Amino acid sequence: MTQINAETGARVRRVTIVDVAQHAGVSTASASKVLRNAYGVSEAMKQRVQASMDALGYRPHRPARGMRGRTFTLGLLVSDIENPFFSLIADGITSVVRSQGYELLISPGGYDAGSQNAVIDALIDHQMDALVLIGPVVTGADLERIAGEIPLVVVGRHSRSAALDSVSGDDELGSALVVDHLVALGHRRIAFVANQQDSLEPDRPESVRLAGFVEAMARHGLAESAMVVDSRWSLTGGHEAARVIAETAEAVTAVFAGADVTAFGIMSELWERGLRVPDAYSLAGYDNSRMTSIGPIDLTTVDQSGFEMGETAGRLALERIGGRTESRHVLLRPRLILRSTTRSVAAGG
Amino acid sequence: MTQINAETGARVRRVTIVDVAQHAGVSTASASKVLRNAYGVSEAMKQRVQASMDALGYRPHRPARGMRGRTFTLGLLVSDIENPFFSLIADGITSVVRSQGYELLISPGGYDAGSQNAVIDALIDHQMDALVLIGPVVTGADLERIAGEIPLVVVGRHSRSAALDSVSGDDELGSALVVDHLVALGHRRIAFVANQQDSLEPDRPESVRLAGFVEAMARHGLAESAMVVDSRWSLTGGHEAARVIAETAEAVTAVFAGADVTAFGIMSELWERGLRVPDAYSLAGYDNSRMTSIGPIDLTTVDQSGFEMGETAGRLALERIGGRTESRHVLLRPRLILRSTTRSVAAGG
Repeated sequence: MTQINAETGARVRRVTIVDVAQHAGVSTASASKVLRNAYGVSEAMKQRVQASMDALGYRPHRPARGMRGRTFTLGLLVSDIENPFFSLIADGITSVVRSQGYELLISPGGYDAGSQNAVIDALIDHQMDALVLIGPVVTGADLERIAGEIPLVVVGRHSRSAALDSVSGDDELGSALVVDHLVALGHRRIAFVANQQDSLEPDRPESVRLAGFVEAMARHGLAESAMVVDSRWSLTGGHEAARVIAETAEAVTAVFAGADVTAFGIMSELWERGLRVPDAYSLAGYDNSRMTSIGPIDLTTVDQSGFEMGETAGRLALERIGGRTESRHVLLRPRLILRSTTRSVAAGG
Repeated sequence: MTQINAETGARVRRVTIVDVAQHAGVSTASASKVLRNAYGVSEAMKQRVQASMDALGYRPHRPARGMRGRTFTLGLLVSDIENPFFSLIADGITSVVRSQGYELLISPGGYDAGSQNAVIDALIDHQMDALVLIGPVVTGADLERIAGEIPLVVVGRHSRSAALDSVSGDDELGSALVVDHLVALGHRRIAFVANQQDSLEPDRPESVRLAGFVEAMARHGLAESAMVVDSRWSLTGGHEAARVIAETAEAVTAVFAGADVTAFGIMSELWERGLRVPDAYSLAGYDNSRMTSIGPIDLTTVDQSGFEMGETAGRLALERIGGRTESRHVLLRPRLILRSTTRSVAAGG
């Protein structure tokens, strides 16, 4: 299907429906509807797209028939859009799929399985070509069912399912990096803030990060001095965890917050109590979200490559749409980002 | 259409399609499709929804016919999902529309009119029942055209169009609150950071906030000592503005950043230069986004009630879907939030 430029003899890239849409200044979905003569297309739209087809010399070809009915839209489920880490992932997905003519539709599904399932249902109704779910809380059985209806990529959960693709960070390694760093600085009594540890399925990043913390502490012979504070990964959850830590009799010297947003809440609660980081406690987050690098915060954290996660998820979704059916599970390697909230334990600390 | 409970004689709320969907554990759009016998509904879905209709005693009634074809989905355009102020607005919309069975689909449209128009186009293609656009950069003519195709609510722009609804904050008053506060603290030389001032239409919040600053300074007889630094409202834009301010010969004593995210960038750049807020400069933001209240930041800012803006936008959209055609334009009153980044000008400052 390669075209040859008649004047120069050069092989040129075939004109695609995406080119037509861009030329006409309409969405790829609209151009696609004109192409297949779908119901509900205005006469003005038809003429506009047809003019661009003529101008570019576009010819629908056989493989394109397989694309009929595509809506050129990916659905993305998030819990809410407040978490800045999600915007990194969304940017990564967009960077990969937009050049293929795809738009991203994001739906905030809340924090419980019921509302997330309803939102996923609505996304399928709206004829997304594939779904990407960020850290869904639905059951593994739900994921299998959804994967039976639509190409599915899950971000965050450490899935091994044959029905879907997954992209996650190596959360066990990420926790080990933080613990090794704190222990090297002389810390022994270290607290980890967990995210509702009792309600979690074992393949969720929160579970894996917690297991990684416990394991790394044991490896250093510090199982006895590891403290787990069960809270929520949110600003409020950070405030609550900091209250517990500040008021506990067993004085810890370092806190691994599990997520940046929790670390912000901890830092703020300590600040209000007249306690400063890292004077009172060393503090580490997880995510390397944008606000961690702001001067007055300058938080030690773990970079789990949110943008790259998004790029990978976008590529996997396009491959699934293109017909791949065997599953792929990608694990990305995290990096420790050293900043000023962690330092050597004070003498006697 | 009120039902009477046969046993108690009490008037009970009529069972709606939203109740049926919740009972069946499916989206309202799916239940609606079963109701109107739409194409593409699985047999299992039909049985599930029919069972819930039977269990609840649901009867479609005449007014419901007007709802045929509704998809129970609102489309929301944002530039990107990084801005935490947008998540406040989205939460406000969701709080109003979800109880009516609506889901929200959010699409990041980027920062130029071309990409935003393509995304709006795609949202219309996906059969949203109405659109809410946050601070769109498309032209007024584009907005008129879109409002001709779909019920439309614009957030942020100070529109007077008869074709659409708008919700915005009183940005002129917001700027005046900041200037009055800084002047009362003894500041005279005050800088305002503008967002690409040359490219803006006059009804955009950036334009109105800038005009409000200039006007308030003039009212205090300080027109000569007002400084406008043209940059972008982003972390990077804040860094750049701080460089200009720190290196300028005319020493300002206070900076009004125009938006919180810009203030974060300014604070960070000053920090890296060994300059502390408010020792070196008083600093105020705009938005009262969540990170402004974190202890080490504690930024003086303007609350423009993002959640309430969202609630209002959600209500207006539902009214438009319900048939209202005359336009409504709502202006919300901002409040100054005093925190520790603004204080009296130093002697000789």
